[in-house]
Amino acid sequence: MDNNKIYMDRGSATPIDPRVLEFAHPFLKTAGNPSALHRQGLEARSAIEEARAKVADLINAEKPASIIFTSGATESNNIAIRGTAMRNIGRGKHVMGSAIEHMSVLNPLKDLTKSGFTMDLVPVDKAGMVDLAKLEELISQETVVLSIMHANNEIGTIQPIKEISKIVHEKGMYLHVDATASAGKVPIDVQDMNIDLLTLSSNDLGGPQGAGALYIKTGTRIQTVMPGGGQERGLRSGSENIFAIAGMGEAARLAKEELPVESERLKRIRDDLIRQILKNEKTFLTGHPEKRLPHHASFRFSFIEGESILLMMDFQGVQISTGSACSSKTLEASHVLLATGLTHEQAHGSMVLTLGHENKPEDVKIVAEATKKTIDRLRMLSPITQEGEEYPEEEHHH
Amino acid sequence: MDNNKIYMDRGSATPIDPRVLEFAHPFLKTAGNPSALHRQGLEARSAIEEARAKVADLINAEKPASIIFTSGATESNNIAIRGTAMRNIGRGKHVMGSAIEHMSVLNPLKDLTKSGFTMDLVPVDKAGMVDLAKLEELISQETVVLSIMHANNEIGTIQPIKEISKIVHEKGMYLHVDATASAGKVPIDVQDMNIDLLTLSSNDLGGPQGAGALYIKTGTRIQTVMPGGGQERGLRSGSENIFAIAGMGEAARLAKEELPVESERLKRIRDDLIRQILKNEKTFLTGHPEKRLPHHASFRFSFIEGESILLMMDFQGVQISTGSACSSKTLEASHVLLATGLTHEQAHGSMVLTLGHENKPEDVKIVAEATKKTIDRLRMLSPITQEGEEYPEEEHHH
Repeated sequence: MDNNKIYMDRGSATPIDPRVLEFAHPFLKTAGNPSALHRQGLEARSAIEEARAKVADLINAEKPASIIFTSGATESNNIAIRGTAMRNIGRGKHVMGSAIEHMSVLNPLKDLTKSGFTMDLVPVDKAGMVDLAKLEELISQETVVLSIMHANNEIGTIQPIKEISKIVHEKGMYLHVDATASAGKVPIDVQDMNIDLLTLSSNDLGGPQGAGALYIKTGTRIQTVMPGGGQERGLRSGSENIFAIAGMGEAARLAKEELPVESERLKRIRDDLIRQILKNEKTFLTGHPEKRLPHHASFRFSFIEGESILLMMDFQGVQISTGSACSSKTLEASHVLLATGLTHEQAHGSMVLTLGHENKPEDVKIVAEATKKTIDRLRMLSPITQEGEEYPEEEHHH
Repeated sequence: MDNNKIYMDRGSATPIDPRVLEFAHPFLKTAGNPSALHRQGLEARSAIEEARAKVADLINAEKPASIIFTSGATESNNIAIRGTAMRNIGRGKHVMGSAIEHMSVLNPLKDLTKSGFTMDLVPVDKAGMVDLAKLEELISQETVVLSIMHANNEIGTIQPIKEISKIVHEKGMYLHVDATASAGKVPIDVQDMNIDLLTLSSNDLGGPQGAGALYIKTGTRIQTVMPGGGQERGLRSGSENIFAIAGMGEAARLAKEELPVESERLKRIRDDLIRQILKNEKTFLTGHPEKRLPHHASFRFSFIEGESILLMMDFQGVQISTGSACSSKTLEASHVLLATGLTHEQAHGSMVLTLGHENKPEDVKIVAEATKKTIDRLRMLSPITQEGEEYPEEEHHH
């Protein structure tokens, strides 16, 4: 990364932590097959088991064996959803998510409808909080699994997992939590929160790309979605990516160790960012004002479009996101912002800033100025008449 | 790898080529999300497209877009088999493989029987060659896809893909070829061989772990097995592993460039190895004596067991395999050796040597001596009486 650039797009891709790279680097050169019984194979096996213990520790899993490694969060989400649905098909054929889940949760849910399942998505309020009354109403005896993200990657809102867990478990179904955006940023305790399945991403923790993990509570009935050589207790076949797994373990260890101090530091930078950026006219915070990820600030600006914002910011040396990187190609309005009640026009003018280790308090001034210039410039060029839009008072968070 | 060790287990895990590591190393530190539109995202996108072109070139694909990147060969095999079967379910519900396929082909085939498919496995002869008459007999109008490995990882036998392709296409079905063990070792031309789908593994090419590719001929009807953010033309969702993909591309480029000279060099070492090792008593080559991978020598020894062989060889500084690393944990006899007509006892005493860049002609003497010592020692300790077993003459390949 250039030193004169400011990177605030960790939600799309997180630079690997240099300490993680140093730790895992030897496995790039000497990776053996952990199923092989010779010395190199055994070394690879032991690196994986060490990583498993570190990941288990980050989320307080009851034991390391409750963690399986995957190729990433998308695969973890697929195993959690399809794997429980198909394994428990005798119980019923109904699955649920929230309206603001990541596509790697929404699409596996939708895909199950091809196998005769029905699906319901629980709505969220303006701040992106799941409607608990509606959740309770939608669950039936047929429901097998509810998939809820711990925190949303586009608007930062953190869900009340413990309350949700209570509702879900009263009905006897499984709770899957996608913690891709929240792990390492806010504390997670799968035992205290009573979670059955939890998705983690290596890269989002500052680890290498190409690894993810799925926590599976002891006794959970689940099956593979990708059969093969039977690695990872038969749930995730394919030769293990030792470098990425070892790196993910070390990233989890560092995240756990540094979370309390680092999240407070990031929160201060974030609050300052929000304060400065909300000084602009017709500028609104998206997501929840308090119950949000400590490193996450997200906005929408009237009359301008996300893609232009991204390009103008990039031109000024600041890398940001307009929302989900995965859907940014399609130029469709974000389903997350639409679910919070915004119109298509409102949802188009979004900007997401996600902070990390490399960001400093001094970055705020630069980013705030770049944002102001971007907004002023784009609104000057905007074909949308400024008189055409009105906002109800309660949407202003500044 | 220690300098005083000899590694001949590339079939289980291939050390990354130092030139590949040097090429791809920058992407470990600066990996962006290729779906993001800012500079780092665009750099990541362009690294992936360069890799795609290099992989396409290795197998003479009609265009780079015919290649999708996956997390590895297991996932490629799953997409190829399940993806075509489910997408073409209107055509029929019958799938086929050979009896010596890898578990990452056999298990997806078996898994389809849960969705109402029937499955047939074509038998092989003593040398591991697919029975073409039987293949023709088993194909029906209901058959959607035949999955055949180009070369077998345990016995090295290379299948006559062009002949198989002719039979398969006369019936209008799809041909999937698992080229994990053969790519980079023998030439592959998907157009000339008329292949619809072809699996490649990064690590087996000397690239990083955690990437694979699937060639899909233009017009092939296929669907995803892991829905999500829609990356790789919607066929393989999940943020791309840039380092592994860029490395796989470079490994493919080097493999193509060096294949003609390197395969001849390895063949000479291999032939010498086979000559030396077959000097031992009751020692037999497995697989085909001529139509085999240039870097692959595989044996079976009467009266002794593979796991002990592996441990004794390891003790003497030589790392080898007893067959499929994936099934080596289970201590079951290899399904591949059983399919070639060996008994359980015969199949247990196997040793597989797979050579690569780092192996030199001088290695042969050391490995042959270590093998002799291993056999002599283990047979001395063996509880199996040497008079209990007799072999028909035609099984002796020396």
